[in-house]
Amino acid sequence: MPRNKDDNSVYIGRKPTMNYVMAAMMILNKDEDATLKARGRAISHAVDVCEILKNRFLKGTEYKDIRISTEKLESDDGTMNNVSSIEIVLTPPKD
Amino acid sequence: MPRNKDDNSVYIGRKPTMNYVMAAMMILNKDEDATLKARGRAISHAVDVCEILKNRFLKGTEYKDIRISTEKLESDDGTMNNVSSIEIVLTPPKD
Repeated sequence: MPRNKDDNSVYIGRKPTMNYVMAAMMILNKDEDATLKARGRAISHAVDVCEILKNRFLKGTEYKDIRISTEKLESDDGTMNNVSSIEIVLTPPKD
Repeated sequence: MPRNKDDNSVYIGRKPTMNYVMAAMMILNKDEDATLKARGRAISHAVDVCEILKNRFLKGTEYKDIRISTEKLESDDGTMNNVSSIEIVLTPPKD
């Protein structure tokens, strides 16, 4: 049965950093790639999550791909706004 | 005479976005790669600068490399802090 790849995405928001570190670590510990996604100001947060995970919790984790793009979001008053986004693909340590 | 490659770096801080867009555009218009560097919260700002430049000002500009790492910074009281950093290498449009 085909897996839903999106199961391996972690959306970075305003929760504490360690929540996201743990979520990504659970995916990587299954020996699968994890994709961290963030928009706007949360982009800096996503980078922090990756670095803390990589340097302190799961050493040997590597960046497989980093993609930057722009998404259009509709605001409450119906106008469209551009917002930058990032997708960071982490791959588990090779033993 | 060897060029100082660091001339082509743009350090992203708290100035208005367009200042950095213009600084990067001047480098790319010489048909050279530009490297945008940012730390901490300015990382989101760097991503915005790149996307605005790429989508509005110099279409065809591409991401050549995106590197994420951690730097140690000494704070005023002498303690060491880890701060995430990003380096985004932009390459000019190919005509």
